Amino acid sequence: MNLNDAIQECWSKIDEGQVATYIPALAKVDPYQLGVYLFDITNDKKVEAGASQVRFAIESVSKVITLLYAIERLGLSAVEEQVGTRQTGFPFDTILNMEITKETHPLNAFINSGAILISSLIEEQDGLSPFDQILEFSRKICNDPDITLNEEIYQSELRTGDMNRSLAYYLKAKGVLTNDVTLSLDTYFKQCSMMVTCQSLANLGAVLANDGIAPWNNERIISSEAATYTKSVMMTTGLYNESGTYSVKIGVPTKSGVGGGLVSAAPNHYGIGIFSPALDHAGNSVAGLALLELISKKLKLDIFRY
Amino acid sequence: MNLNDAIQECWSKIDEGQVATYIPALAKVDPYQLGVYLFDITNDKKVEAGASQVRFAIESVSKVITLLYAIERLGLSAVEEQVGTRQTGFPFDTILNMEITKETHPLNAFINSGAILISSLIEEQDGLSPFDQILEFSRKICNDPDITLNEEIYQSELRTGDMNRSLAYYLKAKGVLTNDVTLSLDTYFKQCSMMVTCQSLANLGAVLANDGIAPWNNERIISSEAATYTKSVMMTTGLYNESGTYSVKIGVPTKSGVGGGLVSAAPNHYGIGIFSPALDHAGNSVAGLALLELISKKLKLDIFRY
Amino acid sequence: MNLNDAIQECWSKIDEGQVATYIPALAKVDPYQLGVYLFDITNDKKVEAGASQVRFAIESVSKVITLLYAIERLGLSAVEEQVGTRQTGFPFDTILNMEITKETHPLNAFINSGAILISSLIEEQDGLSPFDQILEFSRKICNDPDITLNEEIYQSELRTGDMNRSLAYYLKAKGVLTNDVTLSLDTYFKQCSMMVTCQSLANLGAVLANDGIAPWNNERIISSEAATYTKSVMMTTGLYNESGTYSVKIGVPTKSGVGGGLVSAAPNHYGIGIFSPALDHAGNSVAGLALLELISKKLKLDIFRY
Amino acid sequence: MNLNDAIQECWSKIDEGQVATYIPALAKVDPYQLGVYLFDITNDKKVEAGASQVRFAIESVSKVITLLYAIERLGLSAVEEQVGTRQTGFPFDTILNMEITKETHPLNAFINSGAILISSLIEEQDGLSPFDQILEFSRKICNDPDITLNEEIYQSELRTGDMNRSLAYYLKAKGVLTNDVTLSLDTYFKQCSMMVTCQSLANLGAVLANDGIAPWNNERIISSEAATYTKSVMMTTGLYNESGTYSVKIGVPTKSGVGGGLVSAAPNHYGIGIFSPALDHAGNSVAGLALLELISKKLKLDIFRY
Repeated sequence: MNLNDAIQECWSKIDEGQVATYIPALAKVDPYQLGVYLFDITNDKKVEAGASQVRFAIESVSKVITLLYAIERLGLSAVEEQVGTRQTGFPFDTILNMEITKETHPLNAFINSGAILISSLIEEQDGLSPFDQILEFSRKICNDPDITLNEEIYQSELRTGDMNRSLAYYLKAKGVLTNDVTLSLDTYFKQCSMMVTCQSLANLGAVLANDGIAPWNNERIISSEAATYTKSVMMTTGLYNESGTYSVKIGVPTKSGVGGGLVSAAPNHYGIGIFSPALDHAGNSVAGLALLELISKKLKLDIFRY
Repeated sequence: MNLNDAIQECWSKIDEGQVATYIPALAKVDPYQLGVYLFDITNDKKVEAGASQVRFAIESVSKVITLLYAIERLGLSAVEEQVGTRQTGFPFDTILNMEITKETHPLNAFINSGAILISSLIEEQDGLSPFDQILEFSRKICNDPDITLNEEIYQSELRTGDMNRSLAYYLKAKGVLTNDVTLSLDTYFKQCSMMVTCQSLANLGAVLANDGIAPWNNERIISSEAATYTKSVMMTTGLYNESGTYSVKIGVPTKSGVGGGLVSAAPNHYGIGIFSPALDHAGNSVAGLALLELISKKLKLDIFRY
Repeated sequence: MNLNDAIQECWSKIDEGQVATYIPALAKVDPYQLGVYLFDITNDKKVEAGASQVRFAIESVSKVITLLYAIERLGLSAVEEQVGTRQTGFPFDTILNMEITKETHPLNAFINSGAILISSLIEEQDGLSPFDQILEFSRKICNDPDITLNEEIYQSELRTGDMNRSLAYYLKAKGVLTNDVTLSLDTYFKQCSMMVTCQSLANLGAVLANDGIAPWNNERIISSEAATYTKSVMMTTGLYNESGTYSVKIGVPTKSGVGGGLVSAAPNHYGIGIFSPALDHAGNSVAGLALLELISKKLKLDIFRY
Repeated sequence: MNLNDAIQECWSKIDEGQVATYIPALAKVDPYQLGVYLFDITNDKKVEAGASQVRFAIESVSKVITLLYAIERLGLSAVEEQVGTRQTGFPFDTILNMEITKETHPLNAFINSGAILISSLIEEQDGLSPFDQILEFSRKICNDPDITLNEEIYQSELRTGDMNRSLAYYLKAKGVLTNDVTLSLDTYFKQCSMMVTCQSLANLGAVLANDGIAPWNNERIISSEAATYTKSVMMTTGLYNESGTYSVKIGVPTKSGVGGGLVSAAPNHYGIGIFSPALDHAGNSVAGLALLELISKKLKLDIFRY
């Protein structure tokens, strides 16, 4: 498939969305950007088009990385004790479901309460703060040493993070989050403020698609079970409240962020990174998902069909 | 793999569950049964073991068949206007989520409200009642002319169906269910009362796995998109409130019923029918799911990994 | 106070509301009506003004009468086992709160689920159907032999009663409503379709205000504890979801109906009946409540102050 | 009535409850205490019995005082814009109802979210912190210059206040709480930690019962409308989730605290202070409510009857 044609085909979708406005640093991003990076792990071929090298805020896509890092550090079963693998039926930042069902733990790792809890599990090690470890791990799994913290975005997240504070104190009050709330939130705000490219995310997707092994050096970065677990959770809860919609339309494990990024992992085939900052009502990149749907169809990636 | 060994390995799981007790006809079923039928569509090979030819009540597995039939009759987009493809975060028989979120339509086709709505969409045709059509279609897609209505179970469902009546009148009051409530419920109660075997369900799974084409005669029974859509919905919502748990553990699109049946479709590989009537708290066959997990691992069927 | 002046003062409030539209028989009522009947039980003085003798559908005001009749028939403690005395925080026709809190019984007798349950408690007696008994009791406690069933409204209620059917089957499924659902709903629909006047409701209010004794003949119609219990429940839950708003603004136990009626009982002072069919968003008579607020202030009826 | 006999009659109720255990300072209070102070404002007569002079933590009874102070400072309409006057149907420390109904403001001033919001409205004035003003106002309206902050309880509240922090940040995130969260919570924790006696609370109740005028010096402390508003809210929401239960059983505006205190205001008759630290499941003093019910019956205080 011709990626430039595909980008052109999806370009008009940008007008259907709008950039995240809850923080100034995201609100001022130019919406008219669309980039893609495909990493074909069956033959180590990479193709890219559009804004594939533009840096943008990783936001909720970081939840994938921190989840993987927590599994590596603590083991899958320890993580499974902290968060479930179920959709909530509600927006990503509420605790409605937990309150109603008297669940003691967040329903999955990709709603905010679950992600904050996962971040809280990372303890200081060898003098490295939790975030320093996450940053280092991000650079490694994305094969991108240039990932850094965007101070402006981080400060904005701090200023506007009251709902996340509410969630964290709720978890603390319920005895679920046992570490320091302020540090846990700081780690979370920082991980959301890392700057990545389509290429970084395609590399992350490629590791997941490749059963946990980095295709660029054949080093195992995460366990096979961590990769499988995470792809499954991406499929069922990766696209906020619209995960079910896209598991039907696209059929490729994917996680989105309000910075406009998407990471996809087509098992044993492709790692995909996409960027387009205009979002739909649920917080997913509009043109990005259109492009991903097109790619999935053209490359026959829907795991429920092929 | 040796299916008899697998059955033996999972047999003790039966003791962790109990048969459905809400109707006498199910309560008196012998819990100590476990059967499996595997249909390998790559080479048309079938193997079976245990209680693979025992007839049991299809119950919620019928939701798959009626969904497929409704898509064939009305088209996928018409069905998608009636039900979503999202998990609810709540038990299968509540309308909590709809009430809270002010959703106008059931979140998916496999919770009771969604399934009743789907059943209500089937109109009388050529003198055949909705259920007569569903029965005929069941016999065809399961390649099993011996599927019949179990009158005792049907009468029991009628007697104990007040929560389903509540759901149906709720949908009627909201203007969502527009056909006759009593007829719609009658169709629903009857479809749940059909008697099937592991072999019937394996055939159903094989059609789904084979992109909609019956492997036994190469006839297309359902469209490719119907098969893909349904496998995706089975993955995210097929196992009641525990769907997310098993999408992680098993990774094969599966639908369960409180009769103890399971149908699985491993795309382009296997159709699987399993039966064991002792259920876990969520209403899924305990030993059946253990056996399915074992089979998924041995045959490398997890679509998030292989 | 001059009641005609008071009516004139509140007349313009009619434009802020609109008549109930869910059934044709109510939708065609002329909104420009406002009537009041005051029964001063301290000196047996009655005054009336405006549409005080117009007949209108009693609708939810009938819940007061059926509650009182059920207490007389079964005793207060039996009724208290069936329904609570708490607000729900939700609209009158949902079961949200029960579902969320796992309450087994409706939170109060004035939400629809509670009222249907109360109606279901009345058993046939001496060849009189439950509704026949309620009608007879209504005529007695309202001192109005001309109360009859409006067949057109009753038929309309039957046709549009699906949400009430949903609630009734929900209660049946939970084992709370144990009598016949269809009969219970029929009783409920019929009691809502009785035609009353401001005078009938003022008499009802006067009995409640007078500790259960009819001021017109000094006969005790209901027990003192039934009267006290009911006035308390009217205060906390009598005005749908806005009960708290008016307990603060008016401070007199009051029950409303979507027919536009209001009954108030100022303990040891007044029984009040008001009618004006234009309703606010919560289903309460707009001009009627404005008039009641004026009367409460002028006659110093607020029980939290005087 | 003989108060000592009344205390003896209710004493055994203590065994049905238990002292609050969420903070050590409360957990170590001797449960076997029951005291009462009655202030008859019709003849300026005061009687007391039992532990009427024991100091205890005011806890949620302080919500009455801060509400009154906020009304005095800001006016009733400003306060009514911040909180409603409705029951929630849920426990006092959840935000379930707000989340479900999309309400922008807490449903009433006595659930924790509402009380924290009210506390946040008090601004520093004349160099006095919000709490300093509340303390001063408490001493005045309770006619008790010896009310002080219990540092141990305050520190405990700080340590265990995570659910309140969650509520405060939720309100902040929704744009409802606009002042500093930490200061607002500090004010709230401190107001809960004031030490009072039955006599202090009886005086508070007497001001409320006396239309806002201190009976001991005929000085108006609060407006008539503030007194009326607050008594109404006490009736509908003063006893946590059981307010409806006691509006029926007792019928006197009352507010409880988990320190075991109760303040009641029988309009134009009595101010009542009661103390007994063993609580029922809803957080209300068990023996205290039993004693209040007895007093209400003996002195004919039920405003729905007398």
